[in-house]
Amino acid sequence: MPSLPPPFQTSTDRTVFFVSDGTGITAETFGHSVLTQFELRFKEVRLPFVDTLDKAYDAVREINDAYEVDGKRPIVFSTLVKAELSTVVRQSKGMHMDLIQTFVEPLEQELGVKSTHTIGRSHNIADSEDYKQRIEAINFSLAHDDGQSNQNLVAADVILVGVSRSGKTPTSLYLAMQYGVKAANYPLIPDDFERGKLPSGLIPYKKKLFGLSIAPDRLAEVRNERRPGSKYASPENCRYEVNEAEKMMRREGIRCVSSTAKSIEEIAAMILQEIKSDKRSY
Amino acid sequence: MPSLPPPFQTSTDRTVFFVSDGTGITAETFGHSVLTQFELRFKEVRLPFVDTLDKAYDAVREINDAYEVDGKRPIVFSTLVKAELSTVVRQSKGMHMDLIQTFVEPLEQELGVKSTHTIGRSHNIADSEDYKQRIEAINFSLAHDDGQSNQNLVAADVILVGVSRSGKTPTSLYLAMQYGVKAANYPLIPDDFERGKLPSGLIPYKKKLFGLSIAPDRLAEVRNERRPGSKYASPENCRYEVNEAEKMMRREGIRCVSSTAKSIEEIAAMILQEIKSDKRSY
Repeated sequence: MPSLPPPFQTSTDRTVFFVSDGTGITAETFGHSVLTQFELRFKEVRLPFVDTLDKAYDAVREINDAYEVDGKRPIVFSTLVKAELSTVVRQSKGMHMDLIQTFVEPLEQELGVKSTHTIGRSHNIADSEDYKQRIEAINFSLAHDDGQSNQNLVAADVILVGVSRSGKTPTSLYLAMQYGVKAANYPLIPDDFERGKLPSGLIPYKKKLFGLSIAPDRLAEVRNERRPGSKYASPENCRYEVNEAEKMMRREGIRCVSSTAKSIEEIAAMILQEIKSDKRSY
Repeated sequence: MPSLPPPFQTSTDRTVFFVSDGTGITAETFGHSVLTQFELRFKEVRLPFVDTLDKAYDAVREINDAYEVDGKRPIVFSTLVKAELSTVVRQSKGMHMDLIQTFVEPLEQELGVKSTHTIGRSHNIADSEDYKQRIEAINFSLAHDDGQSNQNLVAADVILVGVSRSGKTPTSLYLAMQYGVKAANYPLIPDDFERGKLPSGLIPYKKKLFGLSIAPDRLAEVRNERRPGSKYASPENCRYEVNEAEKMMRREGIRCVSSTAKSIEEIAAMILQEIKSDKRSY
């Protein structure tokens, strides 16, 4: 579990707290993207569900303890919506990065309305239409993982194609989970290359296809982790498959993105851009 | 695809832009949690990968166009790391919420080092150990979805148990994807209740078990969507299964959380809290 705070990290420069009255995901995601701008190591502590005064005082104690241990001010990223909780946590000895106050107050001015000061997201999310669509998309993507089913591909928003281990599965799941996109995925295998044709189940949905490619040496590396020394993982075979898959995509006019050195977040965002520009009508 | 901007939304109050030189996920996640504090409707436009001056000027044009159409200042959440891109986008007629500048500059002061001003996250993420562990966790969670495999459960960080449709699958995948937690999941079925015993494959791993429960009427609703009118989805059967599952969890001392009205983000964060407090040694 890479995200848990390492208990005995010795060369840590600072402790960073992510304090939230919800899941803490926003504070953490945002905090990470700020902290990666600094070439320092941070010890991270996540404090979610700080939604009572007692828990806020507990948070203050934890932050102050870290200050004592480190001898340096901890950095505190917080998304506490309720002003009274935020006021308590700000009394700690940490350096406070209050995401809500910093932006909500200017927005109240701009929009000419008061904020509801409720933890909107956490209370409403599970009932929202968006959320239901996300869950439905996850189920869809799972049922259509790795070409498992040709049924109901008509309902897919996108169908990822590519050779085995090119990143299709995690990307499909990410598209579903983050954006509610029904993403099927379908492998391209040596049989397809020999026949020189797309798998027949995909032909009716050519416009939904989106190719993932990958550098052959990177593919060999990934495959070797799974099946060391196999023909499947050999550099020659990886070169062959990638080459054939790219040829097929070009011939069929399938848009394609390379997954090499890209995270699933980046691949998903690129695919989404493409789908969006298809649909854009304003 | 719920997150795409609705093209013909008439009663929209404002246009909101999420501008980033990376995927835009941070800007969007953060922007959403701020905007849910306001009971207004927003039209959302995502502008990821704005990483050249040309694209920055394009963004300015899009923002200014929205201003013309709406007659109101668009709200712009941006995470542009490079100062020259940020400077360009700030020239637009939008109201600017610059996440990087607002927080990075005070942090440079506090930490006594200059930020690298690189898009650290996007360039490094795919090579980082954290990322590899996340991908590995996704593969693990998929292979251990719905009790598919008893093999290698020893490597699981957590094993979710609960009746069919209690939310195990999306929660496992979310734990894997977001936190790199190897989360298996295993259904509790009427056979288990009749025998009055946990599935035998789980017994060696009792400490890793984490129960998901759900209100019977909510479960009936969810199951009815999948198999309308079935015995499986009937209120009596759902009451029976939930009741038996909860009894079993109590008897076996399995920690349990209700998934009713909770999002997978919230359930995952709660489970993580529990795992973390097990491991906490500092």
